[in-house]
Amino acid sequence: MNAARLRSLLTRVRKGEVSVQQALDQLRLLPFEDIGPAKVDHHRALRKGFAEVVLCQSKTPEQVGQIFKALARGGATVLGTRATLQHFEAVTAQGLKAEYHEKPRAIVANPVKKAGRLGPVLVISAGTADQPIAEEAVLTAELMGAKVERLYDVGVAGIHRLLEHRDLVEKAKVVVVVAGMEGALASVVGGLVDKPVVAVPTSVGYGANFGGVSALLAMLNACAPGIAVVNIDNGFGAGYFAAAVCRQSRRR
Amino acid sequence: MNAARLRSLLTRVRKGEVSVQQALDQLRLLPFEDIGPAKVDHHRALRKGFAEVVLCQSKTPEQVGQIFKALARGGATVLGTRATLQHFEAVTAQGLKAEYHEKPRAIVANPVKKAGRLGPVLVISAGTADQPIAEEAVLTAELMGAKVERLYDVGVAGIHRLLEHRDLVEKAKVVVVVAGMEGALASVVGGLVDKPVVAVPTSVGYGANFGGVSALLAMLNACAPGIAVVNIDNGFGAGYFAAAVCRQSRRR
Amino acid sequence: MNAARLRSLLTRVRKGEVSVQQALDQLRLLPFEDIGPAKVDHHRALRKGFAEVVLCQSKTPEQVGQIFKALARGGATVLGTRATLQHFEAVTAQGLKAEYHEKPRAIVANPVKKAGRLGPVLVISAGTADQPIAEEAVLTAELMGAKVERLYDVGVAGIHRLLEHRDLVEKAKVVVVVAGMEGALASVVGGLVDKPVVAVPTSVGYGANFGGVSALLAMLNACAPGIAVVNIDNGFGAGYFAAAVCRQSRRR
Amino acid sequence: MNAARLRSLLTRVRKGEVSVQQALDQLRLLPFEDIGPAKVDHHRALRKGFAEVVLCQSKTPEQVGQIFKALARGGATVLGTRATLQHFEAVTAQGLKAEYHEKPRAIVANPVKKAGRLGPVLVISAGTADQPIAEEAVLTAELMGAKVERLYDVGVAGIHRLLEHRDLVEKAKVVVVVAGMEGALASVVGGLVDKPVVAVPTSVGYGANFGGVSALLAMLNACAPGIAVVNIDNGFGAGYFAAAVCRQSRRR
Amino acid sequence: MNAARLRSLLTRVRKGEVSVQQALDQLRLLPFEDIGPAKVDHHRALRKGFAEVVLCQSKTPEQVGQIFKALARGGATVLGTRATLQHFEAVTAQGLKAEYHEKPRAIVANPVKKAGRLGPVLVISAGTADQPIAEEAVLTAELMGAKVERLYDVGVAGIHRLLEHRDLVEKAKVVVVVAGMEGALASVVGGLVDKPVVAVPTSVGYGANFGGVSALLAMLNACAPGIAVVNIDNGFGAGYFAAAVCRQSRRR
Amino acid sequence: MNAARLRSLLTRVRKGEVSVQQALDQLRLLPFEDIGPAKVDHHRALRKGFAEVVLCQSKTPEQVGQIFKALARGGATVLGTRATLQHFEAVTAQGLKAEYHEKPRAIVANPVKKAGRLGPVLVISAGTADQPIAEEAVLTAELMGAKVERLYDVGVAGIHRLLEHRDLVEKAKVVVVVAGMEGALASVVGGLVDKPVVAVPTSVGYGANFGGVSALLAMLNACAPGIAVVNIDNGFGAGYFAAAVCRQSRRR
Amino acid sequence: MNAARLRSLLTRVRKGEVSVQQALDQLRLLPFEDIGPAKVDHHRALRKGFAEVVLCQSKTPEQVGQIFKALARGGATVLGTRATLQHFEAVTAQGLKAEYHEKPRAIVANPVKKAGRLGPVLVISAGTADQPIAEEAVLTAELMGAKVERLYDVGVAGIHRLLEHRDLVEKAKVVVVVAGMEGALASVVGGLVDKPVVAVPTSVGYGANFGGVSALLAMLNACAPGIAVVNIDNGFGAGYFAAAVCRQSRRR
Amino acid sequence: MNAARLRSLLTRVRKGEVSVQQALDQLRLLPFEDIGPAKVDHHRALRKGFAEVVLCQSKTPEQVGQIFKALARGGATVLGTRATLQHFEAVTAQGLKAEYHEKPRAIVANPVKKAGRLGPVLVISAGTADQPIAEEAVLTAELMGAKVERLYDVGVAGIHRLLEHRDLVEKAKVVVVVAGMEGALASVVGGLVDKPVVAVPTSVGYGANFGGVSALLAMLNACAPGIAVVNIDNGFGAGYFAAAVCRQSRRR
Repeated sequence: MNAARLRSLLTRVRKGEVSVQQALDQLRLLPFEDIGPAKVDHHRALRKGFAEVVLCQSKTPEQVGQIFKALARGGATVLGTRATLQHFEAVTAQGLKAEYHEKPRAIVANPVKKAGRLGPVLVISAGTADQPIAEEAVLTAELMGAKVERLYDVGVAGIHRLLEHRDLVEKAKVVVVVAGMEGALASVVGGLVDKPVVAVPTSVGYGANFGGVSALLAMLNACAPGIAVVNIDNGFGAGYFAAAVCRQSRRR
Repeated sequence: MNAARLRSLLTRVRKGEVSVQQALDQLRLLPFEDIGPAKVDHHRALRKGFAEVVLCQSKTPEQVGQIFKALARGGATVLGTRATLQHFEAVTAQGLKAEYHEKPRAIVANPVKKAGRLGPVLVISAGTADQPIAEEAVLTAELMGAKVERLYDVGVAGIHRLLEHRDLVEKAKVVVVVAGMEGALASVVGGLVDKPVVAVPTSVGYGANFGGVSALLAMLNACAPGIAVVNIDNGFGAGYFAAAVCRQSRRR
Repeated sequence: MNAARLRSLLTRVRKGEVSVQQALDQLRLLPFEDIGPAKVDHHRALRKGFAEVVLCQSKTPEQVGQIFKALARGGATVLGTRATLQHFEAVTAQGLKAEYHEKPRAIVANPVKKAGRLGPVLVISAGTADQPIAEEAVLTAELMGAKVERLYDVGVAGIHRLLEHRDLVEKAKVVVVVAGMEGALASVVGGLVDKPVVAVPTSVGYGANFGGVSALLAMLNACAPGIAVVNIDNGFGAGYFAAAVCRQSRRR
Repeated sequence: MNAARLRSLLTRVRKGEVSVQQALDQLRLLPFEDIGPAKVDHHRALRKGFAEVVLCQSKTPEQVGQIFKALARGGATVLGTRATLQHFEAVTAQGLKAEYHEKPRAIVANPVKKAGRLGPVLVISAGTADQPIAEEAVLTAELMGAKVERLYDVGVAGIHRLLEHRDLVEKAKVVVVVAGMEGALASVVGGLVDKPVVAVPTSVGYGANFGGVSALLAMLNACAPGIAVVNIDNGFGAGYFAAAVCRQSRRR
Repeated sequence: MNAARLRSLLTRVRKGEVSVQQALDQLRLLPFEDIGPAKVDHHRALRKGFAEVVLCQSKTPEQVGQIFKALARGGATVLGTRATLQHFEAVTAQGLKAEYHEKPRAIVANPVKKAGRLGPVLVISAGTADQPIAEEAVLTAELMGAKVERLYDVGVAGIHRLLEHRDLVEKAKVVVVVAGMEGALASVVGGLVDKPVVAVPTSVGYGANFGGVSALLAMLNACAPGIAVVNIDNGFGAGYFAAAVCRQSRRR
Repeated sequence: MNAARLRSLLTRVRKGEVSVQQALDQLRLLPFEDIGPAKVDHHRALRKGFAEVVLCQSKTPEQVGQIFKALARGGATVLGTRATLQHFEAVTAQGLKAEYHEKPRAIVANPVKKAGRLGPVLVISAGTADQPIAEEAVLTAELMGAKVERLYDVGVAGIHRLLEHRDLVEKAKVVVVVAGMEGALASVVGGLVDKPVVAVPTSVGYGANFGGVSALLAMLNACAPGIAVVNIDNGFGAGYFAAAVCRQSRRR
Repeated sequence: MNAARLRSLLTRVRKGEVSVQQALDQLRLLPFEDIGPAKVDHHRALRKGFAEVVLCQSKTPEQVGQIFKALARGGATVLGTRATLQHFEAVTAQGLKAEYHEKPRAIVANPVKKAGRLGPVLVISAGTADQPIAEEAVLTAELMGAKVERLYDVGVAGIHRLLEHRDLVEKAKVVVVVAGMEGALASVVGGLVDKPVVAVPTSVGYGANFGGVSALLAMLNACAPGIAVVNIDNGFGAGYFAAAVCRQSRRR
Repeated sequence: MNAARLRSLLTRVRKGEVSVQQALDQLRLLPFEDIGPAKVDHHRALRKGFAEVVLCQSKTPEQVGQIFKALARGGATVLGTRATLQHFEAVTAQGLKAEYHEKPRAIVANPVKKAGRLGPVLVISAGTADQPIAEEAVLTAELMGAKVERLYDVGVAGIHRLLEHRDLVEKAKVVVVVAGMEGALASVVGGLVDKPVVAVPTSVGYGANFGGVSALLAMLNACAPGIAVVNIDNGFGAGYFAAAVCRQSRRR
């Protein structure tokens, strides 16, 4: 039952075609989402200027193709993360207009050139091997309407690069830090800037990094305040969160 | 907004005192619980013959006293788990009629003698040190209306005791197994009976039992089917689940 | 020594052909299963209307083929879980009548159309990638004689779908919830229904989900009571447990 | 070397009193902070309207007293977290004007009534036992200049309370969710709102919650996007981060 | 039902007082232990010259007192491990003759001077702090009838002490190695002797020893063969196992 | 320096060809193994009737081939564990006479028919998938001179099979139990027999078995005494340890 | 801004072409590295006689090729660790002169014959499978200018080999110990020598070695002092650290 | 048998008072330490200018008192780490001249004013709460003969303090970094200096620092080379290692 059906029901109550009790009975069973346009609106607001998202990993190409077909119907932009080329081919086989972004391993169906009204977001990454995750954050934030600046290969020993680009830092509304190994870059950046820092631990490293746990723990325990953390290798989540922060600042 | 207010709103719509649009706006904001008597009923059904539950651990005696006062108002039975004597004193200081069960460390306010219509539930425990957790399961299931039988000190080497009490097993609708250390009792019982077995790992043991992890993992990996597991030392959860199973069989 | 031999022994004691001491000596050595028809009956009862089960993973196709041959002899239904096509081919190579269920990766030899007298069981899953595990639960419960209803793709944000299908929930005797990632669906469902909820954590996710540990821990720590948990990805165990619950309610 | 000394050096270079080489040598050794007013300004900006912070845990009362004395000199507001009454007494023994906040176990020296220009921030907590951590977030965000609204005791089964206070949600620039046990509240809130959600796992629970790990993992793996996580029991970090987000939106 | 009752039953069958069918029915329900004198004998053999054992930890003094009273009735030797003085006092309060061994924190009721026919067992410990666990092994093995030799404070750097006492090593039938920290002593001893080595990891150490996990893992991964491991701090288990090995060699 | 060279040195001292000081200097540098015939004898004793052992895993086929060539020179029996067919081919390519045992994935060079003077050892395994590890234990113990009996597919629910073969149990000097999943079989066997039980956890299982950790922890925490544990999947270690126990009993 | 530009700026200040204020403004923005020749010199000193290092793992061959091209420009020696042959081919495809070291899986571009002025370093490894990691340490230390001696296959039971080569130990300035499994070799070596010991845990082993965790924990908990540890399988780190120690001793 | 006895033996061989065979037999049994003056000398060299060390934790005051009495006999300096005042009193009760160092919780018996010939060592710590561990490192290194400089409260955001004291860094032969929480200071220091860096993770922090694991993992995974790590809170080990490095450089 959507708002239209609800209006119709109320109208019929007013007209006396439906008794109060009958209406009451029907309303009791209403799934709250359908009656709750506020919530739906929220969701629309949430997605305004943004794409639906599909986590392709653990799904078969066939499943991904069908999900994209359902979501991209009508021209909506859809983002698929952690996608293989097989996933991408299954999407294009559905006759959808789509792009494959190799570095972040992402599919974008019905891509739209974003003006980048929000932000900007500054995405900083530590090593070359962290770039795919950083790129996932970039792509996500851009799809959500944010302007994004990149500052890559800023190891702990190369923190001066951040200072060299003080203009980028100055302008940014939020900073995303992507780092593996010991994840110290988040602490160092957090100690230098007064922006919200979204930290993304990556699984880059070996041995006692335990698939990203070392960076995750370091970022959660960062002594510099102003840092919040997303899941290991979750560039998407960081980009999404960063854009959500930017959107808030826009709303005032 | 409850059903009464909803009825009132609909009546005013019918009378033309409230426009369709106005009603629509109000309904959009309705918290679903209030409009959803089914759900509320569910909850009532859920609690029929049963007590509200308060996890006392991590709460101050003052907090527990106030929560009990609020819940036990009107004579409702309220169960407090993992309670100390200090918690209990704070409850009685509120003028409530309450009992403290020492073994399961539980408070029961407004206790009612249960007829034990449901079940029976059979609670089996491995060692003396597991009994407090077993007693928590017993008390919980009884408060929910189940008849409960105890079979304690049934170590893996004493599995014949289970066979000696075949009548208890035969009659039981569900078996709760409480065991620490290596938790093998759950597997052994699961291999002998065709009832649903609810396994409760306890933190009893030392060294590589890691506070109950050894028993937890053993129970999750039990090769005998028909076993489901609750949290470490969660006698309450097992008693609740067991009684819920019994209630289902009653409903037919 | 089975019941027949035991009867024969006792008869010979009565006839004086065997001395009391001789009988005593023989009885002392009796393996308890053979003397214990109750236990054997239990096991038969347990399996009544149900198949033998073979965990195919970690076994070679040859081993699986031979085990199926031994168990399916005489037309018994046999379920093989976590099976590959190679396992399946080894089974059919034995001349057995068998089906391969691709989604749940299961082999069923001597399949029988079940009437679905028990239940019904409601199987709810969170994401598309959780469906194979959910299907394993469905197939198992059906083989055990339960009627099963599916409610898939019910993410935490889509909980209204559950409410939309209140009839399914109302009718169900037990609910199986299959979810990966943070496993919050079990808590949400547990908060809404008063049925026993069997929670199946899946390994779906990445990074700090640690192969299903995040969902497992969440489900074990669910604040809503009435939830018990099986091993990660153990759809079979959940289906089996759910059917066992249904069978109990039938027995009254 | 500060800006004044740098200006003096440059003036002397201009006057010829210091050779280019001598100046070069001195500048090479300049600690970057002193020459970097931008950075210092950043830090001042960071702290504008905010207090210095001292983690009191693991420090002796004497150390805390001395650190407060040094920082609160001149009337600056100083926040001490995870403080005992002993810490507080050591602070007042220094002759400082200070308050002890019992619930969040915090000391505030030179407290200032905040106007609450930023935000508002909405702090939601799951259970009574989570409130001390929630209060730490509230106090921190307030000290940083944010207006804060509380919405407590919103368990997963009580999510309607959030909907009942849609106005709070609507107005909030950022939402802090504080929850222990299985931490599902973060996912549920994240699925309902389009604000950045800062999730704080707490150590509330027992058994397989492993001191907050269950909630931490659940929040990191939340399927709803827009959630970032801070350390277990780190109410301070969440309040700080939330206020930092609000400050960004103010800057435009 | 014990052997006497079984004999009586068979006699009554012979006499015709009990029908074959009635006997059959009774025998079907026989708990296997009672009919299984072999097993009971095994257990008696197992305990011959040995005490019953009570793990006192996690039990109240009252419980321990009552269990000792039940077991020590008739003069049997009973061993209580991980016992406090309170436990001991509860035992003596039952009027039992008992000793408290302070180092291994053990109670022995009805102590008997052992001749030490079995073995000998050689117990080697690494550091002073490991001695309580070593003493628990010594006491247990002695109570089981083994002669025990001690070789303490044999750190990895003091392995020559082992060589200095070659006679002890030569004579020993089995060697128990008790070590905390990195547990390397087990590997070193295992590389030097051709006896079965029972390794006991202790929780002695700090930091990344994780309560004995470092020594446990080291001992499980020892490159020298001939080493088997018991639980962390489980001196009792090692002493018991060592004596069991000795008993086997005696049986030939 | 071996005994021969030492004798020669001493002879030259006696003859006055080497001064006391010169001898002293040489002796100071003596590696202790060479001077220590006891130790060497120990090692020979250790290996008497037994093979050298090579862990092939993590070594290249080339390395394994060369190591076998060096060790098998002169006809010594050499055992290679965790070997692939590639390893085996590299061994035979060296012109060595060798067998490949497929189930335990083992290479035996210069195999000798063992009379099986020691023992017997009884090897019990839980499931079909545990058999390769059990077979590794069997092969190792046999190579060390022990007679070995197998009792396979003895799940927890099939413990009667053990009782059916009481003769095997009676005769055994030591029992090896091989089990994955929850590893409860070790506890059950340990509760039934009074022999030393060597428990081998296997990595068989899935989900929360964490590669054998569930069985490992269960076995370490077994409530039945008389159980010692080797590394996960370490059939070799168990067979070696069991044979070492048997050898001790032979020595008396 | 480098030293040249800084000099130019100061010169223009002196000449009056740039005002003090303008210079001040520019200097405030100076990245500290550029102004900090000390630090740059440090880095140069650090790398003097040494190569740049590229961790090839997690990078594509293309990325590695480009990074090598950038770093090896001008003839600098560049070390690539954890490199595959594909990585190597991508490097040579850039026209660079490079060698591939198969055992340590390393690429060296612009290799230079090192005189080995520093050290010597003694690298000891436990097993054949540890050699690749040991070789990585050797290659790294050599590239940094150290003379390196190898002592391989020194198991715990073969510690006499170390004593046999007392000359190597005597001469060494620092000892690197490479060992997997239980890592006891580090403790044993640490107990015998008075040199700094750099311990490298390797992932060699299986089961409860958890990818090198057993050796890592053992080395961190070594009871012998004078041992420091690097990451699992981090031969590079150990070689680098050892050479850094040697360089210090050279500086006096 | 020491060198004197060995000389006597050889002399008697030469004189013909002892046959070659008799000497051979005696020498075979020689514990290698006694014959190995090199090793003993090593140990003496190791301890030259240094104290014996006693880990007091897990030892009773009585044990510590007796051990000190035995070691300090003859005026040797003895260091006791992790000592309580009770330990200290037990030491002075033995009539020994001793000091208690409160911050590092250390006892020094027979303290000697050290000239500080070696080093210097620079000890850097992150936070106030890390100072006790840092002080343990300082005291240990000083007792071993090193001059030590302190640089405390150098958080990641205060790294300029390190640069401000470039002279300390320049002079140091080795740097010890003590840090808890995320341990990023080690990476930052490692990126700035070309000295060997010994990193000490501390247990300072809360929540997901897991008693120091976060800092430990971060330090093991540090992307800057030249860092080696000791156990959590092991200030002693770091001080010892640092002094051992200094001693090497002295030996050239």
